[in-house]
Amino acid sequence: MPVLVMKFGGTSVATLDRIRRAAKRVGVEVAKGYDVIVIVSAMSGKTNELVGWVNETSPLFDAREYDAVVSSGENVTAGLMALTLQEMDVPARSWQGWQVPLKTSSVHSSARIEEIPTDNINAKFGEGMRVAVVAGFQGISPEGRITTLGRGGSDTTAVAFAAAFQAERCDIYTDVDGVYTTDPRVSSKARKLDKIAFEEMLELASLGAKVLQTRSVELAMRYKVRLRVLSSFEEQSDEAGTLVCDEEDIMESNVVAGVAFSRDEAKMTLVSVADRPGIAATIFTALSEAGVNVDMIVQNISEEGRTDMTFSCPTDQVARAEKAMDAAKGEGIINFHELIADTDVAKISVVGIGMRSHTGVAAKMFQCLSAEGINIKVITTSEIKISVLIDRKYMELAVQALHDAFELDKAA
Amino acid sequence: MPVLVMKFGGTSVATLDRIRRAAKRVGVEVAKGYDVIVIVSAMSGKTNELVGWVNETSPLFDAREYDAVVSSGENVTAGLMALTLQEMDVPARSWQGWQVPLKTSSVHSSARIEEIPTDNINAKFGEGMRVAVVAGFQGISPEGRITTLGRGGSDTTAVAFAAAFQAERCDIYTDVDGVYTTDPRVSSKARKLDKIAFEEMLELASLGAKVLQTRSVELAMRYKVRLRVLSSFEEQSDEAGTLVCDEEDIMESNVVAGVAFSRDEAKMTLVSVADRPGIAATIFTALSEAGVNVDMIVQNISEEGRTDMTFSCPTDQVARAEKAMDAAKGEGIINFHELIADTDVAKISVVGIGMRSHTGVAAKMFQCLSAEGINIKVITTSEIKISVLIDRKYMELAVQALHDAFELDKAA
Repeated sequence: MPVLVMKFGGTSVATLDRIRRAAKRVGVEVAKGYDVIVIVSAMSGKTNELVGWVNETSPLFDAREYDAVVSSGENVTAGLMALTLQEMDVPARSWQGWQVPLKTSSVHSSARIEEIPTDNINAKFGEGMRVAVVAGFQGISPEGRITTLGRGGSDTTAVAFAAAFQAERCDIYTDVDGVYTTDPRVSSKARKLDKIAFEEMLELASLGAKVLQTRSVELAMRYKVRLRVLSSFEEQSDEAGTLVCDEEDIMESNVVAGVAFSRDEAKMTLVSVADRPGIAATIFTALSEAGVNVDMIVQNISEEGRTDMTFSCPTDQVARAEKAMDAAKGEGIINFHELIADTDVAKISVVGIGMRSHTGVAAKMFQCLSAEGINIKVITTSEIKISVLIDRKYMELAVQALHDAFELDKAA
Repeated sequence: MPVLVMKFGGTSVATLDRIRRAAKRVGVEVAKGYDVIVIVSAMSGKTNELVGWVNETSPLFDAREYDAVVSSGENVTAGLMALTLQEMDVPARSWQGWQVPLKTSSVHSSARIEEIPTDNINAKFGEGMRVAVVAGFQGISPEGRITTLGRGGSDTTAVAFAAAFQAERCDIYTDVDGVYTTDPRVSSKARKLDKIAFEEMLELASLGAKVLQTRSVELAMRYKVRLRVLSSFEEQSDEAGTLVCDEEDIMESNVVAGVAFSRDEAKMTLVSVADRPGIAATIFTALSEAGVNVDMIVQNISEEGRTDMTFSCPTDQVARAEKAMDAAKGEGIINFHELIADTDVAKISVVGIGMRSHTGVAAKMFQCLSAEGINIKVITTSEIKISVLIDRKYMELAVQALHDAFELDKAA
């Protein structure tokens, strides 16, 4: 029988009633003839509670013990989901990560999935079991210890199972009903997309659209897993939600798929850096070694052997960046006048695979912002994305103006 | 290094502060030179919450899923305890049941321990680890599924580890500071015992003294594990609490060790049973098959081919007993006039290994009750125990009078 993977996030299994509701959705797919693999998160709030206890007990915790503690929430929902399905006369059983076994690397608290043997679960499907409920987010290391995949890891678990079992589709049930052209809280004209390409979803996910974990989208793209995002709180048809798929599967699409934004970016400027060959490499190696995730980089024109270097990084890494630069200056590796941190900025991005074949997207974006009197501080581009840093106070205005300019409220 | 097993119950690990307190006690033993195996329960209330969810989801639950759900509480405390010890610079790590692996039978929700391999944990002790923190109450079946040992199973886990590792002692930390001659809430003269024999503890445990689970005492007796019950809420010396041990290890003891009582017993009388050879076997087979735990049995003198048969059973099994007897009557297997249930009784027991060598204990008990005007309804005796059923309203009076009569407030 064809296999379907269905993943339910924390809000979708937050109470026994919601677990029942989710189980009913599973029952619908079973009735259609699917063998179903259900991936569950912990009840919403549970993992945060466990993480809080670990942090309070041991601020610099042993990640192996962290994993042993925080993985327990998923075990509870997996068992309860299996029991709920059994009550509905759907043959089901639960699996914890180590029982599958979902084999991972030994990098505790952010382990990578290495292998998912299918024989165990397939044998049970062969015996008439219709639903395998698997605790998401967790696996087992080569040393036989419990690992976790990092926050949001249940999405990744679901996609990995879909790839391993060659599932027809991987449905991600969540508390939103799909992927939107932008955040509906910022623009009332935001429109739900029926389909979006993996590459676009990846850019949106990494830009902070919290619908799917970036790693899960990467994995789906690599293994060509058809991924659907839909709401567990509404009655669903086969066409509900948003399908994340290969761009070949999208017949018509707008040049720009969506407008993303982030408030959590800071603009950092190293003023008057002594310019010499290799100075950029030196600076960004030092930042990387300090664990600073640099996003945008701009180097101004050099004057008299000195230059200004501007980069952006997450706001909560500003202190770390400052410490790393001061240390490098102290050691004489880098010479600069001062480091200015500007946390009062926002990043606005337009994303769309159509940019590959359409010119003028950047020009249109800059004109639109200029017409609203919004000054652009930094620009970066990729093949399918253009991002700018602007004053934070203009963020909502910029999003709304760009949404209008690219006519995202209208389907292609 | 010698091994010590320390078990902390739910109230002893109910909060992060209490876990710290328990970890400090563990640190004291490590400093003395012990390699320590710590067995932890779930935070108090957690297991009840999980059991509640399972029952609400599926009243006739699949016990395999029940076990997968309810075992999760212990995993949390095991990880937190290991982290707490690490914070105190005590080398420690956690083990879940399947990691040891603690091998059990497949009887889910009340599995029996079959084997505890020691190589895994001993190898870590050999590498310098000083504390193995093990999640109590859980194991793994031959089929690779999680099992639990039944409520109070963490005591049994602790004793089984002490036996497997030939531990010097098994310390059970709980919310009382030892075993008393009777419940201090009923008699203010109740005295804490320094030592008690396994056989006596077994009788007291099965009579409802909730200090230790009966199975754990049986196991300790079989493997000669020195078992100590003590409070996790007080500063402890090496002589604190009550040592449960072989009777040879007790130099002097009172004839009677303690007075136990139970409010949860009902007196059942089958009136005018048609007497014939094998009638008792027929009655008690029917009750046993209905799952009724019969404790005391008395058969009155038969008159004209009919007799009265009285037995006691737990109050919550009265309905089941009535149903079984009515069914047997309906099938013509047993002929009786009526079944009278008296739930307004209490069982009082005096327990002591000294009874084996001292005569007159029963006589003294009956005289004491008689002097207080308390009528005895049913009597049973074992080698080291005499139990009587009396009117419930006299229960406290009987306990106090017997405590005085046997001078239990005075040490031997």
